[in-house]
Amino acid sequence: MTDNNRPLDVVILAAGQGTRMKSALPKVLHPVAGRPMVAWAVKSARELGARNVVVVTGHGAEKVEAALEGSGVTFARQDQQLGTGHAFLCGVDALGTQDADVLVLYGDTPLLRTATLQALIDDHRARGGAFTILSGELADATGYGRIVRSADGTVERIVEQKDATEAERAIGEFNSGVYVMDARAPELARQIGNDNKAGEYYLTDLLGLYRALGAQASAFKLTDADEVLGANDRQGLADLGVILRRRINRAHMAAGVTLQDPDTIYIEDTVTLGRDVTVEPGVMLRGQTRVADGVTIGAYSIVTDSVLGEGTVIKPHSVLEGAEVGAGSDVGPFARLRPGTRLAQGVHIGNFVETKNAQLDAGVKAGHLAYLGDVTIGAETNIGAGTIVANFDGVNKHQSRVGAGVFIGSNSTLIAPRVVGDAAFIAAGSTVHDDVPEGAMAVARGKQRNLEGWSRRYWGGLHEKVQVKLPWLAGWLDRQG
Amino acid sequence: MTDNNRPLDVVILAAGQGTRMKSALPKVLHPVAGRPMVAWAVKSARELGARNVVVVTGHGAEKVEAALEGSGVTFARQDQQLGTGHAFLCGVDALGTQDADVLVLYGDTPLLRTATLQALIDDHRARGGAFTILSGELADATGYGRIVRSADGTVERIVEQKDATEAERAIGEFNSGVYVMDARAPELARQIGNDNKAGEYYLTDLLGLYRALGAQASAFKLTDADEVLGANDRQGLADLGVILRRRINRAHMAAGVTLQDPDTIYIEDTVTLGRDVTVEPGVMLRGQTRVADGVTIGAYSIVTDSVLGEGTVIKPHSVLEGAEVGAGSDVGPFARLRPGTRLAQGVHIGNFVETKNAQLDAGVKAGHLAYLGDVTIGAETNIGAGTIVANFDGVNKHQSRVGAGVFIGSNSTLIAPRVVGDAAFIAAGSTVHDDVPEGAMAVARGKQRNLEGWSRRYWGGLHEKVQVKLPWLAGWLDRQG
Amino acid sequence: MTDNNRPLDVVILAAGQGTRMKSALPKVLHPVAGRPMVAWAVKSARELGARNVVVVTGHGAEKVEAALEGSGVTFARQDQQLGTGHAFLCGVDALGTQDADVLVLYGDTPLLRTATLQALIDDHRARGGAFTILSGELADATGYGRIVRSADGTVERIVEQKDATEAERAIGEFNSGVYVMDARAPELARQIGNDNKAGEYYLTDLLGLYRALGAQASAFKLTDADEVLGANDRQGLADLGVILRRRINRAHMAAGVTLQDPDTIYIEDTVTLGRDVTVEPGVMLRGQTRVADGVTIGAYSIVTDSVLGEGTVIKPHSVLEGAEVGAGSDVGPFARLRPGTRLAQGVHIGNFVETKNAQLDAGVKAGHLAYLGDVTIGAETNIGAGTIVANFDGVNKHQSRVGAGVFIGSNSTLIAPRVVGDAAFIAAGSTVHDDVPEGAMAVARGKQRNLEGWSRRYWGGLHEKVQVKLPWLAGWLDRQG
Repeated sequence: MTDNNRPLDVVILAAGQGTRMKSALPKVLHPVAGRPMVAWAVKSARELGARNVVVVTGHGAEKVEAALEGSGVTFARQDQQLGTGHAFLCGVDALGTQDADVLVLYGDTPLLRTATLQALIDDHRARGGAFTILSGELADATGYGRIVRSADGTVERIVEQKDATEAERAIGEFNSGVYVMDARAPELARQIGNDNKAGEYYLTDLLGLYRALGAQASAFKLTDADEVLGANDRQGLADLGVILRRRINRAHMAAGVTLQDPDTIYIEDTVTLGRDVTVEPGVMLRGQTRVADGVTIGAYSIVTDSVLGEGTVIKPHSVLEGAEVGAGSDVGPFARLRPGTRLAQGVHIGNFVETKNAQLDAGVKAGHLAYLGDVTIGAETNIGAGTIVANFDGVNKHQSRVGAGVFIGSNSTLIAPRVVGDAAFIAAGSTVHDDVPEGAMAVARGKQRNLEGWSRRYWGGLHEKVQVKLPWLAGWLDRQG
Repeated sequence: MTDNNRPLDVVILAAGQGTRMKSALPKVLHPVAGRPMVAWAVKSARELGARNVVVVTGHGAEKVEAALEGSGVTFARQDQQLGTGHAFLCGVDALGTQDADVLVLYGDTPLLRTATLQALIDDHRARGGAFTILSGELADATGYGRIVRSADGTVERIVEQKDATEAERAIGEFNSGVYVMDARAPELARQIGNDNKAGEYYLTDLLGLYRALGAQASAFKLTDADEVLGANDRQGLADLGVILRRRINRAHMAAGVTLQDPDTIYIEDTVTLGRDVTVEPGVMLRGQTRVADGVTIGAYSIVTDSVLGEGTVIKPHSVLEGAEVGAGSDVGPFARLRPGTRLAQGVHIGNFVETKNAQLDAGVKAGHLAYLGDVTIGAETNIGAGTIVANFDGVNKHQSRVGAGVFIGSNSTLIAPRVVGDAAFIAAGSTVHDDVPEGAMAVARGKQRNLEGWSRRYWGGLHEKVQVKLPWLAGWLDRQG
Repeated sequence: MTDNNRPLDVVILAAGQGTRMKSALPKVLHPVAGRPMVAWAVKSARELGARNVVVVTGHGAEKVEAALEGSGVTFARQDQQLGTGHAFLCGVDALGTQDADVLVLYGDTPLLRTATLQALIDDHRARGGAFTILSGELADATGYGRIVRSADGTVERIVEQKDATEAERAIGEFNSGVYVMDARAPELARQIGNDNKAGEYYLTDLLGLYRALGAQASAFKLTDADEVLGANDRQGLADLGVILRRRINRAHMAAGVTLQDPDTIYIEDTVTLGRDVTVEPGVMLRGQTRVADGVTIGAYSIVTDSVLGEGTVIKPHSVLEGAEVGAGSDVGPFARLRPGTRLAQGVHIGNFVETKNAQLDAGVKAGHLAYLGDVTIGAETNIGAGTIVANFDGVNKHQSRVGAGVFIGSNSTLIAPRVVGDAAFIAAGSTVHDDVPEGAMAVARGKQRNLEGWSRRYWGGLHEKVQVKLPWLAGWLDRQG
């Protein structure tokens, strides 16, 4: 997305401990809206078209590096926590380049938009900037470093809260800690000293080093100061989640999605939704979920990594993961579609039905209390209530094949691997252990015997208990004489 | 509800496109709290005792008219969007009357209370009013037309935002667009011109036309300016839903209903709730639901068009639709009662149980994993876990009848149409394909054979896999020598 | 917790009617965050180490006394509602002691923290206080009695809203009604008169009676005025619930628990949560629930009186009550664990599975649609989909025993009391009515017969209906010639 030829390298500082998280998990791995905080920074770096991205790790470095494996970033270990300047130096050392603009990001500010960073970089480059700060403005910026500008509007220095005069404390423009710098940054970073009370290396010292070279520092002001909020504890984490969720939800509503009570709806930023989708309260949409136009997703349903075709109706309390649902199908309530489920058009899945690695052709109906695992089912087949495809023999899962236009009676069991031909009919209550040819009826159950007068004898023998627990039956027994 | 003899006619303007909805559905059909926005206006008109109600349609006219079919309104098509004055003229032309007060409402302001409109009309009539505006008051009314009053308090004119002087912009009293007019309105509406920048016919011009006849215009001020909020996009729709829900919930709480976390509870205005009803978080109550005193409705349950008797307990995660539940019954969690379910007193429905078109007499118990469809069941009968009434033969649904005091063993299947007599006993695992006489025991299953030493041979033959996947069994096999 | 030797007695006033609750339940029995309001006061009294606690009851006295039975408090009946002074006198008469500090609490202020009360008492004792008021401070205290202090800071009097001068109405310090008094209080209470407009006995008159003895009255100011909020109607009740829930949730987050959307999470104050527990939206944790480190509790799950071992994963939409779940187990979605369920380590319970009084040893798997009631199951046993342990014979529940390493095929039924030996194998679809020896295979089902050409005859006979309802089959029939 960067529009000129200078490369962009990104250093993401992610070495902090986050003590107040009180967690065995490094702070930057705590997720917000489904993604570890540090991964939001990596995502932005990628979207900016960064050439090299280095993540500086420290506390819990192995875990952070493992979590980002495969994301194409490189890592720099900051073994001692000697300050942000030192962390940055670790990062640029790992970069090993001196020809790029360098952007500094953080592992705990997941709300920062890529578009904002792009605007920062564009501004920096348009000015031919040396050192550009991303700043924000608050009515009361207590706690932040303040931006002290010269008469000409360039930035003179950053003054920390504890060092600020009363006049400086009244300044509302604050330093977010995000900077973009020209290619001299790696070299200047070596000159940062630690001759201060804390004995730490401060990244803000770069500003002075640039100015000492006669370069100008400037600041690019955020529109929405919330973007640079970080999380230091679990309350902060929850707060970021709320802000991010509202942002995502607002965008979907603006694009023509009805969210019935947006504050209760959880949509990860990886999800796409078509026009006139209706999402009822309490719904969660996660991962690589794609929802076509006109779909309704019922209350409290959770849909992960699934594709929902046009006009599909997901009824309340359904849980889908890794499933494809064809157009015009209806699913639920209380349905569970597991990975490998592929429903063609107009399939009906009812309550208390589980599917897993199951391909159901158009018009299949499985309305009640069934488990369909490792099976393909042909068009228009009707699966009776209580049907189980018994796919597991204790060691292996076997695959079954049911034809089209088959009628499977209630409470039937198909012992995999089984093949049932087209238009076959399986009598209710059958345990099918042999294949069923096309057009055949399979019956596999016991014959019925009625033992007349049995209840009288049986309950009569339990007469005392029956009187206490089953008064109706006691009366009936008495009437039998 | 109107208290004098002049008739009231109502014109509802509902022709707008609602571009920002980004929807294939006309704006006025988007639902708020379970009812299309335009239907809220129709409901108010009915509650006011309106003689004629005409809905002016335009964009998506067919859909709007279809949605309101059977509501007793007439429709006027506004084929070209020439302004509110033109829309109103279309409406009064369709009315064809000149003897009534005329009330103008909108298809996108569902929060307007009937009581407020009644107060407006009463005020209008008490004054012998000619043209009465429903106005509101805001600290900052930017964007709205402002009410400019004369020294005597009557309304001189309405000034639109863009035409207002600085002094006029400071006026907090705004025009809601809702008016009640005397019987001259239809005729005066023909005199509205379009000699203005936009070339549109403005309904507000009626004010001047009335005043030109020497009639007074007045304004009746809303207590709660929220009532005239409209929705222009999906965010607005969601916002209206929140306000309306709070209003409904507050009224229920004031009447003696406990709502455990009201912001998460969704009750449509068609629902009635008795005293000392407790509603847990996340519950939805919809349609013609009637809840008697002392009922508890558990978290995340969804109840539609159902009747719950006194003291009923609906446990969490239950979904009811078109069901009647007798006093003292308990249902759920994870129960699904479908249309035609009628439970007498003291019935127990447990988890993963579905009923449909099922009448269960007093004291019936169906506690676990069952499907009861198209069946009547007598008092005190016990339905075992996993019982299925197999009501469908592939073409037709058949009706079964189970007597009183019957015991149906677990995992039984009744193949409809079946009659099971009183006090009968069905052995677990039976597939009942013949009727069972009163007091008889039916057994319809295979006999058990135990094949000794089988596991040793079977698992021994799979020894390699067993070692990897079933280490416990591998150990057992080894111990068998 | 009190740190000196004077005993503490507590009088809890709980006789009020609470007309605005519109309830058959006395006001103080309405629950907030899972506990009747009056029980919060009793809990505080206990935590303060009170010697005697007397609850003054009036409206609905029997119900209040029944609700607090076994809590170790004594009761004093206030048969006539003659004012707070009279209620207090009823209380101290029942105490019958004159040697203790007396603390007055209320049955409808559940937000008051024990720590606040302890601080009040400590302050009272440190001053050698006679009469100490718990006061609060509000910008606008309209409606409350105001604290009028002397120049020396002691309290001169309490002035009620209706009697206050303009200057007094500007006072922000208000009387919460909570007092701690020295041992003279019981005797002084007898001197309270009712010579006032309402003819009532006011507890606030004690202040003047103490001062008439030359004793000083003082006021200890609350940090958080919300703590003394009471509930007079159901809206108030809901509001208290929200405040209390936020307080509980904040404490858990500060201690290292992730709450994904805290405003939708309901945790009773009796619940303990370990570090790095993750709680998804909509979860309810109730009663004596203990959650170990690293547990995840999925959205909309409800866990009551249960113990969850380290690293357990409860998937969404699960309902647990009285269950123990061993470390590393996973449960749900749509699982129901009922009282008496004990899962050892690494047990897997899947969807639509119910357990009740069931002990499952390490590594047992019950993945789909099963009911396991009154049964013990050995390690590593696999329970097939649709398995039912038929524990009920119509009168008694029987206990079954399934060994280790058993494989139970799908849709099997075990008729209790049954013993299945280690490493046994039960064929799918079996109804097991005899015990199964170790290592044996049990088969108990019908043999399969395939009736070739049956569908052609059957459906052919229904040709007309098939054409309408089953077009696919009609086509198939036609192709069969």
